[in-house]
Amino acid sequence: MKTIEDLKPLIDMLQEIQHLSSAGALLSWDQETYMPPGGGGARAEQLSVLGTLVHEKRVGEGMKRLLSQWLDLETGKIQGGGSVWDEPAYGLLREVWTDYSKRLKLPSDFVRRIGKAASLSHQVWVEARKKNDFSLFAPHLKIMIALKKEEASYLGYADSPYDPLLDSYEPGMTVKQVVPLFTALKAELVPILEKVVASQVKPKGDFLCFSYPVERQLTFGQEILKAMGYKFQDGRQDISAHPFTTSFHPTDVRMTTRVDEKDLCSSLFSSIHEGGHALYEQGLPPEHFGSPLGEAISLGIHESQSRLWENCVGRSRPFWQHFYPILQEHFSDQLKNINLDEYYAGINIVRPSLIRVEADELTYNLHIMVRFEIEKALIEGDLDVDALPGVWKEKMKEYLGVVPESDADGVLQDVHWSGGAIGYFPTYTLGNLYAAQIFRQAKKEIPELCPQIEMGDLLTLKRWLNKKIHRWGRQYPSEDLLQRVTGESLNPRYFIEALKEKFGEIYQFS
Amino acid sequence: MKTIEDLKPLIDMLQEIQHLSSAGALLSWDQETYMPPGGGGARAEQLSVLGTLVHEKRVGEGMKRLLSQWLDLETGKIQGGGSVWDEPAYGLLREVWTDYSKRLKLPSDFVRRIGKAASLSHQVWVEARKKNDFSLFAPHLKIMIALKKEEASYLGYADSPYDPLLDSYEPGMTVKQVVPLFTALKAELVPILEKVVASQVKPKGDFLCFSYPVERQLTFGQEILKAMGYKFQDGRQDISAHPFTTSFHPTDVRMTTRVDEKDLCSSLFSSIHEGGHALYEQGLPPEHFGSPLGEAISLGIHESQSRLWENCVGRSRPFWQHFYPILQEHFSDQLKNINLDEYYAGINIVRPSLIRVEADELTYNLHIMVRFEIEKALIEGDLDVDALPGVWKEKMKEYLGVVPESDADGVLQDVHWSGGAIGYFPTYTLGNLYAAQIFRQAKKEIPELCPQIEMGDLLTLKRWLNKKIHRWGRQYPSEDLLQRVTGESLNPRYFIEALKEKFGEIYQFS
Repeated sequence: MKTIEDLKPLIDMLQEIQHLSSAGALLSWDQETYMPPGGGGARAEQLSVLGTLVHEKRVGEGMKRLLSQWLDLETGKIQGGGSVWDEPAYGLLREVWTDYSKRLKLPSDFVRRIGKAASLSHQVWVEARKKNDFSLFAPHLKIMIALKKEEASYLGYADSPYDPLLDSYEPGMTVKQVVPLFTALKAELVPILEKVVASQVKPKGDFLCFSYPVERQLTFGQEILKAMGYKFQDGRQDISAHPFTTSFHPTDVRMTTRVDEKDLCSSLFSSIHEGGHALYEQGLPPEHFGSPLGEAISLGIHESQSRLWENCVGRSRPFWQHFYPILQEHFSDQLKNINLDEYYAGINIVRPSLIRVEADELTYNLHIMVRFEIEKALIEGDLDVDALPGVWKEKMKEYLGVVPESDADGVLQDVHWSGGAIGYFPTYTLGNLYAAQIFRQAKKEIPELCPQIEMGDLLTLKRWLNKKIHRWGRQYPSEDLLQRVTGESLNPRYFIEALKEKFGEIYQFS
Repeated sequence: MKTIEDLKPLIDMLQEIQHLSSAGALLSWDQETYMPPGGGGARAEQLSVLGTLVHEKRVGEGMKRLLSQWLDLETGKIQGGGSVWDEPAYGLLREVWTDYSKRLKLPSDFVRRIGKAASLSHQVWVEARKKNDFSLFAPHLKIMIALKKEEASYLGYADSPYDPLLDSYEPGMTVKQVVPLFTALKAELVPILEKVVASQVKPKGDFLCFSYPVERQLTFGQEILKAMGYKFQDGRQDISAHPFTTSFHPTDVRMTTRVDEKDLCSSLFSSIHEGGHALYEQGLPPEHFGSPLGEAISLGIHESQSRLWENCVGRSRPFWQHFYPILQEHFSDQLKNINLDEYYAGINIVRPSLIRVEADELTYNLHIMVRFEIEKALIEGDLDVDALPGVWKEKMKEYLGVVPESDADGVLQDVHWSGGAIGYFPTYTLGNLYAAQIFRQAKKEIPELCPQIEMGDLLTLKRWLNKKIHRWGRQYPSEDLLQRVTGESLNPRYFIEALKEKFGEIYQFS
């Protein structure tokens, strides 16, 4: 059998490119954390020069020559097929060709045009949001939609032009799969939400908004990250306006958080969430750095890791059984009169609201559906940008029963569209569904998991995820991976069951 | 006349290369400030890939094609000469060719070999210094010396193989100039030092080692940096083991400091020193970013800016006349019984000591001479590495009258040789001499300068330096620049005079 040893020149080139790409990632990290305000102009130039270089190397003659030794550049057919190559090498060639052929489909001129337009559109969005003026942003969004349609036409599709855009975040996923999935999900979520809203139980959350000194919030969050197995030796946590995780190598995986003295949950759960992302990146096999075997498989699977830690673990009763007394020690004044039950109910309050990033575990997915329907319609040509503010309000009313008074709290709230990230939103809900299905499997395979979590032992779970998911990189496509891990395809049932169980208990319905 | 407008394709390419080089500089900055310990291996790879790329672009076919349009690649002769090109364009072509031809002289294989050897040698030096064991480091230093001799032979020289090494830090400077300069300087410094040592006046410095909370030290240092005109909008200050300044663009110039609760001077004077470097970098013309017209002319001139601020200003009485009361406010407990005279004498204590970076304004240069003589002898083949510890002690005895008990406090104390930075040391003393000559000129041209400094106005001086030095980039070689600014060549007289005046007053001799 041929192995990845036979692909050494390719792997060397991929590694070199990835090191350059990591340099760019550091530039971006710095931009969000420590860069002085005046440095933005030069930073954009640095990123652009480096990005162009990386792109040229990825689709250049050198890459072409290498790949054509082992596969057909047009079709991606690997010479000899699976009978000649072992599984890792075969997976590697398959994924490298997928990336290569996708990138090659986009003309350099188009890449430059959309890069520039996105940068400008993003700047205008920041201003429009601040001024609460959608009309400022509308012309730029129109340009971005037109460009994304153009992108879809280059990438090609059978059914919907939304498909290739979605595919670039969640490879293999299509409108045909997402629509029925979301429809089924909505049919389940809305009745649960109605029961919650109708319940006589009204948990209190006011104590979460007492004054919590930020330094101590950060210290506590980092204790949890350590307990999760995040290696500070190979990473760090900083402050930024929006939390994110970035990796330059499995030995340097950094996350950020934001921290608000009057909001205990903000930094806490964003830390656990980003910690989930970071564990995936730290768990990727360093010996495959640079090749697809050393990369995360999809945004949806990535999000499953953050959601699993944030929601399945971090908002669970077993977790707080151990950590709540410690939290109380850190904040004895603020929490001395709040018992575990009250705390647990407080951090799980369900309340239809306007802002996606502040939404609870249940309503969050309704926010995603609103966005998915709108962006799909925009790309398929069924909706005009000018109609957006009105449509937004209608859909918010329909899905969540609340209507924003301002566009800043409505259609202008998310950064994604301004930068051309269309097709991204569904991965958040897919992440929730994957997470529930994976976590259920973990509990099945490790009967002592919940008791362990109750004792503060999170490392068994971390190691299980390392073994089942992280170490494989992109060797198995998301669907295959999920099948391998859980024995079945994506099934929203586990997510619904978990929600019913948790919120049925808290809000006392069945 | 042809202008830099006619060189646009060249300037575009230089800018692109400089943006890549700045990306590398950010990687290095991060390595010294925020990188987690585990990230070192990947960082070395990123820097190596990026460095190779930058080098290839600097000496590649693209550059060759461009340059050959305007000059003779062998001799650097510019077509048409100074009558066809205006001064900036002529200076630009001259400096670009200088860099190009120097880089081209070094075979790629050699660049790789010395890069690897330096990296290893540096690691071993760290260990050898920690273990106080010169014999560990000796074999690596031998390799580095051999490589630097090889480098000198590639670069070529008329008199001493040390010349091309010195030239790469201080273009135009030679052994023939430095030796008589240092000899004359030594002849002046030693008698001053003798008078200081013999003086009955023994200023006290114990109060500088009281406990000074680090946060407040940093705040005070930053107030001074602001007063100097350093723009925090376009830069920042962080903590690192060794203070340094780095620039990614005039709009993003960062410095670091170290801070020790038991040493008021360490962070304070390193901040002012680095502030001088940073003002030079922030003062370079942004419209020439990437071209030699946007770069510092030499290490000696760079050091003149830091030394001018650190010593001529930061250790002067007028400066503290304004800032000492403010410092006393910050540290009222520690300084309440120390008056301005006592403070001023305390920060200017002269004391022959073992460690260069802790040396005072006067003896510092004797440390440099010890190093210069030794490295010159090593490169010229007059001294064997194995004899170094002994020679070091002899020379320290001769120049400073003190002898280190351990090699860690002696020949192993500096990082420079381990990484191949041979020919660098003289630039420190050249910087001191330039600084005194330039500062004297500033006082001559701005009669109200000292009264202004007494009132805390440092901006007049900053603007004068911007106008006289910073804005020119590499348009004028160091010697021409000094001639333009001060009306004469380098003259150590001004430095000696300033020392005599300051220390004669403090130590009461004439």
